Amino acid sequence: MDIQGIIKQQQLGLLFQQGNFGLEKESQRVYADGRIVTTPHPKTFGNRAYHPYIQTDFAESQLELITPPCSNLNDSLRWLSAIHEVMARSLPEDEYIFPLSMPAGLPEESAIQVAQLENAEDVAYREHLVAVYGKNKQMVSGIHYNFQLSPELVQALFHAQNDYQSAVDFQNNLYMKMARNFLRYQWILVYLLSATPTVQAEYFNHNSPLTPKQYVRSLRSSQYGYVNEPEIKVSFENLQDYVATLEHWVHTGKLIAEKEFYSNVRLRGAKKVRDLLDKGIQYLEFRLFDLNPFEPYGISLADAKFIHTFVLLMIWLEDADQSAVEQGKKMLEEVALESPLQPTKFRQEGEQILQQLIAMLKDIGAEQDLIAIAQDKLSQFAEPAKTLCGRLVNAIEQAGDYQILGAKLAQQYKQQACEKFYALSAFANMELSTQALMFDLIQKGIKIEILDERDQFLCLQFGEHIEYVKNGNMTSHDSYISPLIMENKVVTKKVLAKAGFNVPQSVEFTDLERAVANYPLFENRAVVIKPKSTNFGLGITIFQQGVKNKEDFAKAVEIAFREDKEVMIEDYLVGTEYRFFVLGDETLAVLLRVPANVKGDGEHTVAELVAMKNDHPLRGDGSRTPLKKIALGEIEQLQLKEQGLTPSSIPTKGQLVQLRANSNISTGGDSIDMTDAMHPSYKQLAVGISQAMGAAVCGVDLIIPDLTKPAEPNLTSWGVIEANFNPMMMMHIFPYQGKSRRVTLNIIKMLFPEWEN
Amino acid sequence: MDIQGIIKQQQLGLLFQQGNFGLEKESQRVYADGRIVTTPHPKTFGNRAYHPYIQTDFAESQLELITPPCSNLNDSLRWLSAIHEVMARSLPEDEYIFPLSMPAGLPEESAIQVAQLENAEDVAYREHLVAVYGKNKQMVSGIHYNFQLSPELVQALFHAQNDYQSAVDFQNNLYMKMARNFLRYQWILVYLLSATPTVQAEYFNHNSPLTPKQYVRSLRSSQYGYVNEPEIKVSFENLQDYVATLEHWVHTGKLIAEKEFYSNVRLRGAKKVRDLLDKGIQYLEFRLFDLNPFEPYGISLADAKFIHTFVLLMIWLEDADQSAVEQGKKMLEEVALESPLQPTKFRQEGEQILQQLIAMLKDIGAEQDLIAIAQDKLSQFAEPAKTLCGRLVNAIEQAGDYQILGAKLAQQYKQQACEKFYALSAFANMELSTQALMFDLIQKGIKIEILDERDQFLCLQFGEHIEYVKNGNMTSHDSYISPLIMENKVVTKKVLAKAGFNVPQSVEFTDLERAVANYPLFENRAVVIKPKSTNFGLGITIFQQGVKNKEDFAKAVEIAFREDKEVMIEDYLVGTEYRFFVLGDETLAVLLRVPANVKGDGEHTVAELVAMKNDHPLRGDGSRTPLKKIALGEIEQLQLKEQGLTPSSIPTKGQLVQLRANSNISTGGDSIDMTDAMHPSYKQLAVGISQAMGAAVCGVDLIIPDLTKPAEPNLTSWGVIEANFNPMMMMHIFPYQGKSRRVTLNIIKMLFPEWEN
Repeated sequence: MDIQGIIKQQQLGLLFQQGNFGLEKESQRVYADGRIVTTPHPKTFGNRAYHPYIQTDFAESQLELITPPCSNLNDSLRWLSAIHEVMARSLPEDEYIFPLSMPAGLPEESAIQVAQLENAEDVAYREHLVAVYGKNKQMVSGIHYNFQLSPELVQALFHAQNDYQSAVDFQNNLYMKMARNFLRYQWILVYLLSATPTVQAEYFNHNSPLTPKQYVRSLRSSQYGYVNEPEIKVSFENLQDYVATLEHWVHTGKLIAEKEFYSNVRLRGAKKVRDLLDKGIQYLEFRLFDLNPFEPYGISLADAKFIHTFVLLMIWLEDADQSAVEQGKKMLEEVALESPLQPTKFRQEGEQILQQLIAMLKDIGAEQDLIAIAQDKLSQFAEPAKTLCGRLVNAIEQAGDYQILGAKLAQQYKQQACEKFYALSAFANMELSTQALMFDLIQKGIKIEILDERDQFLCLQFGEHIEYVKNGNMTSHDSYISPLIMENKVVTKKVLAKAGFNVPQSVEFTDLERAVANYPLFENRAVVIKPKSTNFGLGITIFQQGVKNKEDFAKAVEIAFREDKEVMIEDYLVGTEYRFFVLGDETLAVLLRVPANVKGDGEHTVAELVAMKNDHPLRGDGSRTPLKKIALGEIEQLQLKEQGLTPSSIPTKGQLVQLRANSNISTGGDSIDMTDAMHPSYKQLAVGISQAMGAAVCGVDLIIPDLTKPAEPNLTSWGVIEANFNPMMMMHIFPYQGKSRRVTLNIIKMLFPEWEN
Repeated sequence: MDIQGIIKQQQLGLLFQQGNFGLEKESQRVYADGRIVTTPHPKTFGNRAYHPYIQTDFAESQLELITPPCSNLNDSLRWLSAIHEVMARSLPEDEYIFPLSMPAGLPEESAIQVAQLENAEDVAYREHLVAVYGKNKQMVSGIHYNFQLSPELVQALFHAQNDYQSAVDFQNNLYMKMARNFLRYQWILVYLLSATPTVQAEYFNHNSPLTPKQYVRSLRSSQYGYVNEPEIKVSFENLQDYVATLEHWVHTGKLIAEKEFYSNVRLRGAKKVRDLLDKGIQYLEFRLFDLNPFEPYGISLADAKFIHTFVLLMIWLEDADQSAVEQGKKMLEEVALESPLQPTKFRQEGEQILQQLIAMLKDIGAEQDLIAIAQDKLSQFAEPAKTLCGRLVNAIEQAGDYQILGAKLAQQYKQQACEKFYALSAFANMELSTQALMFDLIQKGIKIEILDERDQFLCLQFGEHIEYVKNGNMTSHDSYISPLIMENKVVTKKVLAKAGFNVPQSVEFTDLERAVANYPLFENRAVVIKPKSTNFGLGITIFQQGVKNKEDFAKAVEIAFREDKEVMIEDYLVGTEYRFFVLGDETLAVLLRVPANVKGDGEHTVAELVAMKNDHPLRGDGSRTPLKKIALGEIEQLQLKEQGLTPSSIPTKGQLVQLRANSNISTGGDSIDMTDAMHPSYKQLAVGISQAMGAAVCGVDLIIPDLTKPAEPNLTSWGVIEANFNPMMMMHIFPYQGKSRRVTLNIIKMLFPEWEN
């Protein structure tokens, strides 16, 4: 079967590079000094019975982070980053994720707790492993790399060949070839990417086979790693033989289950290997990768891409037979125990294979960066110190000990992951509310598929239950008519008035003259004159003390007409505006938004005070921070002027300096949580208002003169001015002052009432 | 109480002109010759137990059309027009609405059927009337005019005066003043607006008090009209006296109920007049207006406005006492029996009052048109022939008989009302689908409130049940997420593919080279290559038989990139596109849209054929006709050229001439109903697609090669290309060919399942 020839002839080079990827990364939870923790798996991660992203591996302390299937490695790495950040920020304050594969500071074996899974079989399996291999060996961590060829490619290849009649047979043989060649040449990946040069004496119960100060390339891939007894040989010659030999070891009781066969390649696609004969191998799992301690997430994007091209080479090359597989396993064992700073015995073969890899990449029209990565790896055969293990040995020597090195890096990575605690770095291009929701979904174990990243469109799944979400809070629970009502201020008012809520009355005008002729209707009334569609407060005039004369009135109307063809004159409500976040029949949060301001200290200038306030970690320039930096532009300077100030004035101690008239967060305003201070009667009103519009999630803006007094049924007690169907959840999650209200969690509970933490 | 002074001083002129209006118009259903029908009230108008717009008055043949309360008369007239059109188009083909107040062609009294109402009390009341007054007098029709002063005005006046301590007392006295002055000066309205100069002898059972050929101003308002016995005198001096005297007549049995008191003014606001003392009079009902036969709806906007200003004058003027009321009633009786073509005996008072009216209008800053109307009325005192009754008498003389005149006008008005049968003339600025829904709502008796006319936003109410509707089909039944899904084509495809529907796959490219490099992915596949945002089909290439070589492929991609920065390559579906209209779990209609075309007859040129086709009543130029006229612009001429034709070519008989490539109705396409021809399996699929997106109402576009064969699960059998949440119901209601599907009725049934016809 001339795969290479077909790909070249049919120009399948691009399709050949497509595929699906999944990463599983094990890591130990450790204390600040690198010792493995003895605490249980954190409760905040929901239930391991279903969690798609965060599991435990062998031990209760050993996390397993799983990325969803992605069609490109860039996305896989983004997910790994996101899951990592969720993990890091959710751990107890004194716990960290150890970045090296070999465990350090192992507890007494008796103190190592096997993962407390619900499924009795899973626990029994782990108890068996303890009996056969001991606990320490199970505490080693690594990365499993899952790869599926593009199904379209497999189909195209099948149609272009004549050796196989059955598509399933063809597919199985393609993956078996990949597996065989991988086992033949796996030593190359160990040479380049291994990172387990040493381990503490406790790991071998103080009976280490290594001499003191001896470094090797990969303890984990060596005979001292977590491997089957040498007698357990399984044939990769073809799938039938594989199934037969593997089942043999299980039947004879040498393996407790098929999954106890620890090959560096696993065939995936069915629970029982025998089922693969019919269903076909769907993808392969490559299991020999050590954690890269220099990467916060244990693997670099470049290495992940290199592994991809390397496994593609495994079907591009001539086929290997079972004896070659056995040869490859022996070479692996040898390389694993070589000194990391010395050239490998098999350098020549390694360089030859990487040259073939580079040739393949050129043949299939791969992007230049892939070729550059392969060339860099090729050069490492001449310079062992540049291999990952070479660099690691040097770093351990510098640090004095791998536990010290690991502890230092663990702290550094946790700090990095917590820096922008309000965002998911990998998805920072999405809105903060969606990022917050995704954070909670990852933490709680609800599956996420991003349907449209720019459009903030997610598909969520828990069991068989699917829900779609846009902008973090637009869901199937809202009726379509509610946002349409809320979008139209006139309709909103009519609906709310009809339902008996206090709504400021308003009159609309489409021409200036008619509006001015109606002046007597508004004389002495406190009104707001504004364009019907208002942007950033442009064209709004407020007569807080009532309209006093026709000239001012006419001027205000004229200003409003500059912004829109329709102008509203509305009752002005005296009081403070609060934003109520309503979900279903509950007000979850109440927020006060205060216009941009600084408080004088008698020492600093306004400009300095602004700069100091802008240092706050929540404040940023763009649209992806919870709060915005206060500007000192034209509008702010005008506002200062009204107070007799300039940016270089030094306000007295305690003096409140206003920098804006409007309270928008987007112009530097402060957000202050008032949920607990608000009289419950207003919270109940907000719920009623939301329900009158058929909304499941709603931001209701009420004007209230005194939040401590119960609501009364007239406009002097309170009035509703707006309802919002996209109510910016992040304001409540990350307030400037007061308690954070994690309303995204309530969204999840609303969508998945069957979910229980 | 100096109302005039307060209004002037406080500049309340505009507020004084505000108010709420309601019209009730009685009419007899008649045959083409003007004879009153003996058929029952049409079943299509739902149930009279709740119908807010269409009721019966005394007799089963006597319609009562009721406008909802409106804050301006323009809207009242629009509603009257809409209700009229619904009425006219819903009547049996041989029935008409008689435009005169006096009945013609009366059946034998025994054949006149009292309205068959559900409420036994209502029927008993009518039977009582028959016993006391006979049936004929009850068959007279008129208009009742309801008017409420702006409550803000009443409040402002109350605050500005010192005579009354209680707001209710003040309000009652204000309306009592209006009533007294109205009764004092009502003769003026009869002089100007009466239209019952004669009646057939049958009306008086051949015992007419009039001499042959005698015309009077208003039989209806005269002693021969439908009036109480002379002894029934009720005091309008104040509300207490009114209640006491009216209750007296009921207690003594002279009146069977309070409502048997037929004053030309009724006090409104409570079921029992005694309750008015506490609740306050809310509005007045003026009952003396005859139908204006020269107006299709029985009253002109100008006259309605005149009546409004006239009743305002009634509180502007000095107060009248009870003796003045009695004097006014006597004057009315006299004027009613005057000859319509002669000046009135009270001309001087009439002119004086109208001069005062004009002065008032100027004082309150009324619009010029109101003053012009009053001036025109004033001039009619000098020219009795210009009064409504004067004109009517002349028209009767010309026609020979008022039955002949009435029959002719009845036919003319019905024809007018049916002309644009797809629209409601008064609401022609709204979308056709919303007009069609409103038609059905009016017909079936569901209350409509237009919340925002430009935004097509309605509030519907049946009993206590309220629903909001936008664009005729956006309701609380759709979930908010569905339109968001449908709005985003990428998300739509993912959601539908996930749910297992046949969706054409597509790939997007942002650069030419990359797209061409992907050629192998598309070889031999039927694809469409198009700019992502496509205008008028520019830059689109279709490989219906599959892409055969790289050169053609590259050329097509290059052409697409000329039109947009992003190019889509999408599976091409072979077949015809059909639009499925889905509501809930049913496909209600299937439509085929055919590109603009004409069929040759061997005689006419293309241009002539187009002109002939454009004569179709459904075709128009604007956006408010179901179909559009075919243009003969640049695009159409290019299309002709491709067929070797020009506008002046004469196609052979039966030759189909394409004028457009696209099938949009908006560019002159034909719509053909295919609901019955479509295989049910596709209808089921469309329902599934709608439900997969959580939509209650949805337009689904399927490509189907053979609509008679059952659907199979692959793209060659069918594919879904789009789903639409605003699916243009009017296309299905008014197809060019095939059966009309009144889907708006299904919307009503969906929203109000409790409603039963």
